[in-house]
Amino acid sequence: MRMKDLLGGKGANLAEMTSVLELPVPPGFTISTQACRDYMHANGEWPEGLDTEINDHVARLEKAMKRKLGDPSDPLLVSVRSGAKFSMPGMMDTVLNLGLNDRSVKGLAKVTGDERFAYDSYRRFIAMYGRIVLGIDGAHFEHPLERAKSEAGVRTDAELDSATLKSLCVMYLAVVKGQTGKAFPQAPDKQLRGAVEAVFKSWNGARAIAYRVREKISHDLGTAVNVQAMVFGNRDDNSGTGVGFTRNAATGENVPYGDFLVNAQGEDVVAGIRNTEDLDALKATFPAIHAELLAIFARLEARYTDMCDTEFTIEQGKLWMLQTRVGKRTGAAALRMAVDMTKGTKVGGGSNVSGSTKGSKKVWKISKEEAITRVTAEHLDQVLHPQFEGGDKRVIATGLAVSPGAAVGKVYFSADDAADAADRGEKVILVRSETSPEDVHGMMVSQGILTARGGLVSHAAVVARGWGTPAVVGAEAIRIEGKQFTVGEVVVKEGDVISIDGATGEVVLGEVALSASKPPEEFDIILRWCDKVRKGKLAVRANADTGEDAINARALGAEGIGLCRTEHMFLAPDRRPVVWRMILADTPAEEAAVLEELRVVQKKDFIEVLDAMDGLPVTVRLLDPPLHEFLPRVDELKDKKATTGLSDEESKLLGAALKWAEVNPMLGTRGVRLGVLKPGLYAMQVRALMEAVAERLANGGDPIVEVMIPLTVTREELALARSWVDKGIADAIDGSSKFARTKSGKKSSSGPRVSIGTMIETPRAALRADEMSEVADFFSFGTNDLTQMTFGFSRDDVESRMMPAYLEHGLLKRSPFETIDQTGVGELVKIASDRGRAAKPGIKLGVCGEHGGDPESIAFFHRVGLDYVSCSPYRVPIARLAAAQAVIAAAGAKKKSDSKKSDSK
Amino acid sequence: MRMKDLLGGKGANLAEMTSVLELPVPPGFTISTQACRDYMHANGEWPEGLDTEINDHVARLEKAMKRKLGDPSDPLLVSVRSGAKFSMPGMMDTVLNLGLNDRSVKGLAKVTGDERFAYDSYRRFIAMYGRIVLGIDGAHFEHPLERAKSEAGVRTDAELDSATLKSLCVMYLAVVKGQTGKAFPQAPDKQLRGAVEAVFKSWNGARAIAYRVREKISHDLGTAVNVQAMVFGNRDDNSGTGVGFTRNAATGENVPYGDFLVNAQGEDVVAGIRNTEDLDALKATFPAIHAELLAIFARLEARYTDMCDTEFTIEQGKLWMLQTRVGKRTGAAALRMAVDMTKGTKVGGGSNVSGSTKGSKKVWKISKEEAITRVTAEHLDQVLHPQFEGGDKRVIATGLAVSPGAAVGKVYFSADDAADAADRGEKVILVRSETSPEDVHGMMVSQGILTARGGLVSHAAVVARGWGTPAVVGAEAIRIEGKQFTVGEVVVKEGDVISIDGATGEVVLGEVALSASKPPEEFDIILRWCDKVRKGKLAVRANADTGEDAINARALGAEGIGLCRTEHMFLAPDRRPVVWRMILADTPAEEAAVLEELRVVQKKDFIEVLDAMDGLPVTVRLLDPPLHEFLPRVDELKDKKATTGLSDEESKLLGAALKWAEVNPMLGTRGVRLGVLKPGLYAMQVRALMEAVAERLANGGDPIVEVMIPLTVTREELALARSWVDKGIADAIDGSSKFARTKSGKKSSSGPRVSIGTMIETPRAALRADEMSEVADFFSFGTNDLTQMTFGFSRDDVESRMMPAYLEHGLLKRSPFETIDQTGVGELVKIASDRGRAAKPGIKLGVCGEHGGDPESIAFFHRVGLDYVSCSPYRVPIARLAAAQAVIAAAGAKKKSDSKKSDSK
Repeated sequence: MRMKDLLGGKGANLAEMTSVLELPVPPGFTISTQACRDYMHANGEWPEGLDTEINDHVARLEKAMKRKLGDPSDPLLVSVRSGAKFSMPGMMDTVLNLGLNDRSVKGLAKVTGDERFAYDSYRRFIAMYGRIVLGIDGAHFEHPLERAKSEAGVRTDAELDSATLKSLCVMYLAVVKGQTGKAFPQAPDKQLRGAVEAVFKSWNGARAIAYRVREKISHDLGTAVNVQAMVFGNRDDNSGTGVGFTRNAATGENVPYGDFLVNAQGEDVVAGIRNTEDLDALKATFPAIHAELLAIFARLEARYTDMCDTEFTIEQGKLWMLQTRVGKRTGAAALRMAVDMTKGTKVGGGSNVSGSTKGSKKVWKISKEEAITRVTAEHLDQVLHPQFEGGDKRVIATGLAVSPGAAVGKVYFSADDAADAADRGEKVILVRSETSPEDVHGMMVSQGILTARGGLVSHAAVVARGWGTPAVVGAEAIRIEGKQFTVGEVVVKEGDVISIDGATGEVVLGEVALSASKPPEEFDIILRWCDKVRKGKLAVRANADTGEDAINARALGAEGIGLCRTEHMFLAPDRRPVVWRMILADTPAEEAAVLEELRVVQKKDFIEVLDAMDGLPVTVRLLDPPLHEFLPRVDELKDKKATTGLSDEESKLLGAALKWAEVNPMLGTRGVRLGVLKPGLYAMQVRALMEAVAERLANGGDPIVEVMIPLTVTREELALARSWVDKGIADAIDGSSKFARTKSGKKSSSGPRVSIGTMIETPRAALRADEMSEVADFFSFGTNDLTQMTFGFSRDDVESRMMPAYLEHGLLKRSPFETIDQTGVGELVKIASDRGRAAKPGIKLGVCGEHGGDPESIAFFHRVGLDYVSCSPYRVPIARLAAAQAVIAAAGAKKKSDSKKSDSK
Repeated sequence: MRMKDLLGGKGANLAEMTSVLELPVPPGFTISTQACRDYMHANGEWPEGLDTEINDHVARLEKAMKRKLGDPSDPLLVSVRSGAKFSMPGMMDTVLNLGLNDRSVKGLAKVTGDERFAYDSYRRFIAMYGRIVLGIDGAHFEHPLERAKSEAGVRTDAELDSATLKSLCVMYLAVVKGQTGKAFPQAPDKQLRGAVEAVFKSWNGARAIAYRVREKISHDLGTAVNVQAMVFGNRDDNSGTGVGFTRNAATGENVPYGDFLVNAQGEDVVAGIRNTEDLDALKATFPAIHAELLAIFARLEARYTDMCDTEFTIEQGKLWMLQTRVGKRTGAAALRMAVDMTKGTKVGGGSNVSGSTKGSKKVWKISKEEAITRVTAEHLDQVLHPQFEGGDKRVIATGLAVSPGAAVGKVYFSADDAADAADRGEKVILVRSETSPEDVHGMMVSQGILTARGGLVSHAAVVARGWGTPAVVGAEAIRIEGKQFTVGEVVVKEGDVISIDGATGEVVLGEVALSASKPPEEFDIILRWCDKVRKGKLAVRANADTGEDAINARALGAEGIGLCRTEHMFLAPDRRPVVWRMILADTPAEEAAVLEELRVVQKKDFIEVLDAMDGLPVTVRLLDPPLHEFLPRVDELKDKKATTGLSDEESKLLGAALKWAEVNPMLGTRGVRLGVLKPGLYAMQVRALMEAVAERLANGGDPIVEVMIPLTVTREELALARSWVDKGIADAIDGSSKFARTKSGKKSSSGPRVSIGTMIETPRAALRADEMSEVADFFSFGTNDLTQMTFGFSRDDVESRMMPAYLEHGLLKRSPFETIDQTGVGELVKIASDRGRAAKPGIKLGVCGEHGGDPESIAFFHRVGLDYVSCSPYRVPIARLAAAQAVIAAAGAKKKSDSKKSDSK
């Protein structure tokens, strides 16, 4: 077990600060996470032997500090802090000044010669202990304090005199007795045990659980408890406390940065009660300490080769370091620092050095690979999309954050209304229960999309991500009724302004100011490094359906299209009536005529896409969704029938919608099954595609096409569909003069570059991948559907309704729609890859589900050996980063295992 | 390749008749199935070298017969018949009298001295060849024949004189010229090639394809072609033709049986143009031939140790055997023969012998194991359920045959109307688009169920099979509109009488007479033998939800209940309002109160089930279906709202139905997910169950309970659900005096026998079976859902809409809902069994999907090593039979492989 697992982040860090960095750290000890886990597993029974161990360590600490806990003459005081493996700032509990009681407070007053300080410490301790360990509402302590201040006619706590504080202590002790029925514990060992237990319990507090769900931290790690001798920043005006960053965490600029308060405890800085001062003020007040701190900053950066944040306290002129860790940073700062740090940094100096100073102990730097691993997907998202700026905002609901970026607009409740408003020049937020392809024309013109239902791979989420449109889905608190929605008491009517943040899931009433999104220059630098690292190992393509999307995707670095959804070409307002006529066609001749119309528009679309991706592969998926998705909804037509009545066409559409309606459309007549029922449809699509290829060739283009058959389950099905495509290609070659240079035969090396493959998106196709590979040139894993079917989770139903409960109960570690479920769905991907490659070595393998843009999933796909991932255009930079990180990690793992092997030889 | 694969059934049989049995068979040769496959694969190009081979064999035949094809003086005539591996009676084509032409017909007339016979044969040949090889409508030949008869003033063909037949030949030749534009082929080799090609083509005729789909015969086998010298039963009155059975195929009685016609060809017997005579008449007319035939019958039975059917022809006093094969038989006959044949049969005599005559060559018999393999599931179905009796019937539609038995009744279109009609004493057929749990009260009182949508495991199918109610589902031709349905022109109104046959899928207008269903005594004898064979190897349980079902299942031989669906207990008319109140409950207290009501009724139900299955295991599945299934349908409530308006309660129900509605309910909030959302529900069910157990124990019963958690996907989920059940059991033991004898502790061996397990019905659960087994005492494979998810096939949508096309195109060999898909779904079953057993040796494994009643699936489950199968009560006898057959087959396979192993030593 690693030190961090056992001691928690803070404990491990303290140990390192003391023994390796030799920083001035107050002495103490750490109770391991194991003790916390034992406590939890025993359902809150106190672990055997823990008291003895704590007592031993307290004795050792007392020896080192030459003071004793609760000593009436010169008491040792300690802090008790939680410290989990992963930082959970503000989520768990801390007790300071432990060891004070009615007698030792007097000793403290005497030995410090400062009665005011002693009673101020005591009243803080009683209140903190009362609140955190004994569960008393903080108001019970605040009211007497406020009263005392108003009676004394002062504004701040610091102005209260020692007598007032003394009587406040008496009042606080009475509060404890009154609220709990028991006296405040005077024995320091009891105090300590209570505080430790409170930290244990805080692990399963509601706040902490919610935080871990959000941050994807496992619930069963437990927390360590750090017990440390107190130092006091509030001792006098020669004392103080602060936080310091070795560089600017907001901009990344290589300039130390910090907040500082004279005569205060750490809580005062965090709570923001008093206005803090900066490091310049520290330098002015305590020049020696300022210099010592900067020297420590330099040692820390050299040690961690990264920006660190620190907490420090000055007690009567002496600097104590309470905490140091690699610090959090904004996206822009992360990019800047990562690039900066590859250039070399002087130890003890702040600025970058240029030129080589290799071998000099005074310079440290990181490799480009290391720089790549310093940047996260969230960092890129931050610089790619606008964000809410700071300030008050009224969050009325929270949903799933499915497409990052923030947006402001007037709400509209139907796609038609949204389109009309956009025509009038309004900025629109489209609000729907859920969306379907019927809504696409309204979604297109919206600044943002908000739905009450749905999950990470719901229609709204997938479409919005594809366009980079901010979206919040599955905001279940919202009740939509006609042209308004309510959340509790709040009513939001058509035309009212709301703001949404697709990176946090927040829905805000009114307009929130948005920051501009402009990636810094380091953005491109890092991504170019990434591309170099992953070249030939893991390609990144985009899911893009139109020429515009494709141009966008290529600009963002896509190396082709992994999924071009031909159905999206059916959805433009001028095309929907044509699609309706196809579905309503009574005779084969009528159907053929309408298909001919569609062919013309599809050809145009294909040309645009192939043009944008010239020289790069484009995977075109033949029509996939159930036909009823192109029709108006049954319930809306029925409602209209009951109110205003239906036109003739609408009546026919209702008939068709009823005919094609399905109980479980996700498991229904879609994908290649549509092809089997309406083979004319696929033939038309292949014809349109091949004509587009011919036209591109004629214009000197270099089109590379991969035709993809969706939702296959048997080899025979794929073979049948492939025969249609083969025939379509052969017909096109025979029939078009534009393929003149390939007339010599199909096998001509200068012929159109077309391959034919299938999506692997049913468990059966994955299991039978050996057979499937016999008639496929490539597989593309459709991990959305594969996840739906492997789990039996409908993306439209389960995710918003069940997933929160599943994550809270720890039944799932994370949504399998967000990050691939490696041991279930992932095993099917692995089985299919292995069997496909065994039967057809070199078969091309990729993934086009939403997981293609998720860093952890990308790492998994690289380990399985896929050739490429494909994701929505705005995820492409993230995928490029994650793919490079995956390649680096895999190389590292290989190196490790190789060296192990050679060790054991 | 086996002889039958290559020569087809008929060809292999002819070879055996000639060489082994030394029967008087007309000489000939067989063109192998390989030639047909070559022809098909080459898309109808004539296989190279086939002509040469045919010519060689014709030459050999001519030598043997000392006559030549087309010889103008004494021509050889041949028959050309198809013969596939599996018999496809009437499905493919035959040409007789081939070799006749304008010249050879004269030679035939001369050499036979019978001009009438010669021209009768020629006109038959031209008509048959014209129809089958040249594709001319038969009416073109029938009209001249009818005209000739009416001009001659005769009634039958046999009365036409030679001159008329001669002129008919001329007319027929003109018909051929007129219809095809070419002269009738006179060259015998051309005639032969045409006939052979016609047989090849007939393999892919519409009739043949439909037959193979129905009989589950692979489309790629191809047919052999048998070319055989003609013999003539229509030569004179010393000739004749007939079919003979070695025993009575209808009753099974050990008495030879046959149909016979003097002076006729085989077609005359089959076509039923003339009334046939029986074997007594044969004995009277041809006593020597009768004796020879009976002696052949005895040899055939001794050779095949089974009943055979034969075709024979007498040509001028000589008996020729044209065909022999093991004969088809009715269910009753199959049972009787199987039992009879274990008792010993004298060779040459008809009656059974009693006492041992071992060692005597004069007696043959079969073993009990062999007797078991002679009976099929269809045989049992025939004797278990009423059938349509013969006679005319007007079939207006055909759907999927999902629950065998025939029924007659008046149609009603809603469950309420059906229930009212049944109250009035009417016999009812419930007709619905599809059914849901809402319809159960109407289904309960119906004689039969007919739906327009749905498949083999749709709600209607599963429920109907459970009750043994005849059902036809997915009759897509039916259009239901209000209180009538139409099929093409036919309109069937509420109250009209229809008949349905759940074994064939036929829907008939009006009343059809039904045969009674009364199993013969051999039914129980055979099944007792089966039970002995499979004892300790593969148990058979029933899916039963009520005490009545359980009593029924036990009577049919079930050894426990493998699936007790607790939701069916919620559906009685008096309980539905209670369930509604539970769903509508606004507060936890309200919900708890309603759950308490439900607990009382569930307890009563459990007591009845446990009573009926005393001493046998009962697997109780906690609530599984989505809650909205218990509510009225949204569309029906909305329609009502638009017309008559809704009551307050109905408005609330509409709200609840909307709230719980899901886009893909099959992948939605159901199974253990319901438990996570409403844990009070499962706690209530466990409490009711444990109280029932306590009451049974107090009354001296021996209840054995297995609590089953449905639809799990993770170990954590199962562990959580298990903890609720464990707590429920512990509470019951602590709380009830009825467990007095177990008070000593939970581990008391005399405590309640309760185990806890899960359904494996998602692909993920199957893949993670090792983890799942850590918290499960048993697995029960829910292969319906597993099939839906593995294929992505909704049972409600895909099956009726897509499956027919899939089977016709050969994309699937059969519906995976009928017989388990061994290589896909089956692999998941195998993976789960292997991983589960590896992690927890001895974990109990069973299957409770509808496949548990399908013989081929049962054989697979036995090979995988499951402990039991569970099926609907009326399938239990079939499962007992199939399980025994599976055990016998596996033992046979083992023996074979063991002996191979010892051979190779």
